[in-house]
Amino acid sequence: MREWLERTLKELNLTETMNPAEGFTRLSYTDEEWAALACFKEKAEELGLSVRQDEAGNVIARWEPERDEERRLPAVATGSHLDTVANGGGYDGAAGVLCALGAVKKLRDSGFSPRRPIEVICFASEESARFGVSTIGSKAMSGLLDALSLKDVTDRDGVTVKEAVESRGLNWDGIGSAERARDEIASFLELHIEQGMRVEEAGAHFGAVTAIACPIRLHVNISGKAGHTGTTPMNRRQDAFAAAAPLVTFVYERAGELSEQNELPIVATCSTVDVTPNVMNVIPGKADIGVDIRSVDDSIKEQLEGEIRNKCAEIEQSYDVGIAVEKLVHNPSVFLDADVHGKILAAGEETGLTPYVLESGAGHDVMNMQAKWPSGMIFIPCRDGLSHHPDEHADPDDLLKGVKLISAYLVKETGE
Amino acid sequence: MREWLERTLKELNLTETMNPAEGFTRLSYTDEEWAALACFKEKAEELGLSVRQDEAGNVIARWEPERDEERRLPAVATGSHLDTVANGGGYDGAAGVLCALGAVKKLRDSGFSPRRPIEVICFASEESARFGVSTIGSKAMSGLLDALSLKDVTDRDGVTVKEAVESRGLNWDGIGSAERARDEIASFLELHIEQGMRVEEAGAHFGAVTAIACPIRLHVNISGKAGHTGTTPMNRRQDAFAAAAPLVTFVYERAGELSEQNELPIVATCSTVDVTPNVMNVIPGKADIGVDIRSVDDSIKEQLEGEIRNKCAEIEQSYDVGIAVEKLVHNPSVFLDADVHGKILAAGEETGLTPYVLESGAGHDVMNMQAKWPSGMIFIPCRDGLSHHPDEHADPDDLLKGVKLISAYLVKETGE
Repeated sequence: MREWLERTLKELNLTETMNPAEGFTRLSYTDEEWAALACFKEKAEELGLSVRQDEAGNVIARWEPERDEERRLPAVATGSHLDTVANGGGYDGAAGVLCALGAVKKLRDSGFSPRRPIEVICFASEESARFGVSTIGSKAMSGLLDALSLKDVTDRDGVTVKEAVESRGLNWDGIGSAERARDEIASFLELHIEQGMRVEEAGAHFGAVTAIACPIRLHVNISGKAGHTGTTPMNRRQDAFAAAAPLVTFVYERAGELSEQNELPIVATCSTVDVTPNVMNVIPGKADIGVDIRSVDDSIKEQLEGEIRNKCAEIEQSYDVGIAVEKLVHNPSVFLDADVHGKILAAGEETGLTPYVLESGAGHDVMNMQAKWPSGMIFIPCRDGLSHHPDEHADPDDLLKGVKLISAYLVKETGE
Repeated sequence: MREWLERTLKELNLTETMNPAEGFTRLSYTDEEWAALACFKEKAEELGLSVRQDEAGNVIARWEPERDEERRLPAVATGSHLDTVANGGGYDGAAGVLCALGAVKKLRDSGFSPRRPIEVICFASEESARFGVSTIGSKAMSGLLDALSLKDVTDRDGVTVKEAVESRGLNWDGIGSAERARDEIASFLELHIEQGMRVEEAGAHFGAVTAIACPIRLHVNISGKAGHTGTTPMNRRQDAFAAAAPLVTFVYERAGELSEQNELPIVATCSTVDVTPNVMNVIPGKADIGVDIRSVDDSIKEQLEGEIRNKCAEIEQSYDVGIAVEKLVHNPSVFLDADVHGKILAAGEETGLTPYVLESGAGHDVMNMQAKWPSGMIFIPCRDGLSHHPDEHADPDDLLKGVKLISAYLVKETGE
């Protein structure tokens, strides 16, 4: 199994080595994502699964049970995605697809016969790297896709989502058909690398995820006045970037304080900045800051948002600038299904693997699936918590543990 | 004269109106700069001046005195430039060229006969907007041009300085011939809009400039560690942008303090910032900040530079990042000629115009001319101190005062 995992991991990543210096780049709806999906289909068919692709590009590989009446039962589904960010790693998404296939192989090899359908799902376009919109495939499957507002969103080259989807031979106007009925799926399980270090630091084998901390995202637009850096006295300035600095400090320090005081952690990041005109001899007249705030505790996210707005009002006065705060995203956190969570813990117990119960700071396809079907999530450790980076790495031993957990879970859900 | 000034200003700006919404764009060595230079030649020839263009593109318009022995004397020169930044105003540079021509016209009209040559010089390519290198023409004239290191510098489209110069029919390899001998020029005077508000606030008519505050420019490269904004706890971060914020605050606040404490003002600006990867869900792994520090007092610039380096060392510790400070530019301030300055003050007295003595926070062609010839500078006010902007404006009355000052100065220098 270990050898099969290592070989199949490389195949799904279309590579001979898992550590190319430039990492892996398989953006949404590109030739590269499609080549990985084609490989997934091939691997699934090798395992005897029947494969179809929906109009969003999701690939659904299905292990049909023997009896007709069993085939009509809701499927137990597991999976993740194969697209990546630019210069990302070969485990984010791929680990979940690989371990799901590995679990099917393990059950097949052991002569197991499921009493209801098992599905391995490879979602299309999970990463927001190309279009700024994440989890397109799982949104389409669970009926959460707002196709109308999405279709004209463009990538850097001006290609729209609609054009990108249709370049793959799919029909945009039919994307609604990717939505599945509630009674097609019994439950969904996603395995993913943790992209953090909490499982490892807790000395556990795997993470059992209770909830997904979805973000509040703000755009803070600061308007000052451009001027010559050499001829504008310090006390006559309306420097938009100087005004941004105490806001950045506040977000960083206050999130740290709130995290220490609160039961559930909160993180907040000033992750983007664009100043205008951004040339050496002109005082910045404008500065736009992107702020990403996450916690499973929605009330503490809202508290920090309020404090940021107050801080901006204070800065407007002291720096003689105007500040507009725009809320880009306010997604309430998603709590995963308690029953599925319990079965994940039970699978850990059966296989002798110790869980660490935690929330996910990152969004995943599972958050959309949970909107319609009972869903759960497993984290396996990744080295140094590093992700979205060429050095992203998960140990083969941890992939093996993932296979054990998923297969134990599937037996529990689809066995006698 | 007033009508001539207003008409000629528009002609030199190749425009029917001085306030087009998009301003004026005449970048270095483009068709637009060359069209303005062609207009300058025409206006100078109308005034009876003999015109030549050197291999750097500078246009030199000369009023020859009557007698042969007078023609061999060093010339008294005045002028400025006609190129602009992108979407700039029609006064930065143009005001100095216009007032110089106006002074010649005024003297011609009055029947004045100079006892030595008078030159109106229109320098090529003063702005750094296209190539990031300023005052190319005056550097070439005064022998300060480093043609070897300059020739491969490119603009945004990959066009080199050499290619741009040669696209104008000039010969790059002959650019050294633009350097003039010390005994060709007696003195140089530049009139320019102030690009600040000090003259107006002092209730004076014009500025008599003592020195040019050249910058120290630093590039501060902060290396932290990129990571997922959702999965990296606050106390495990190496956020390069969070680390930049207290530096930006320090530069802003400390320059303000030093300016209040010091006899000569200092200004400092964090004018550029680039964070990597600059996407909403990734903690900034790198942040590069450009710092521009200016004062006529070189020692205080160096003091602030030292304090910035100390602050960076402190930030390295408290934010767990690495910081490299690179010095891009360290130009000592240029003190203008005391004798020329005295004659400018005397010209003010004769014409009944009140001077305000100040230093220039911005660089100008005169700083290069001073390296070889006794030079001086006059500021006229511009509305709200605004420059490099479509709304840049100088009052016709102030242009008229400039003409009076330059003509009085020329009479003093070239009369009986």
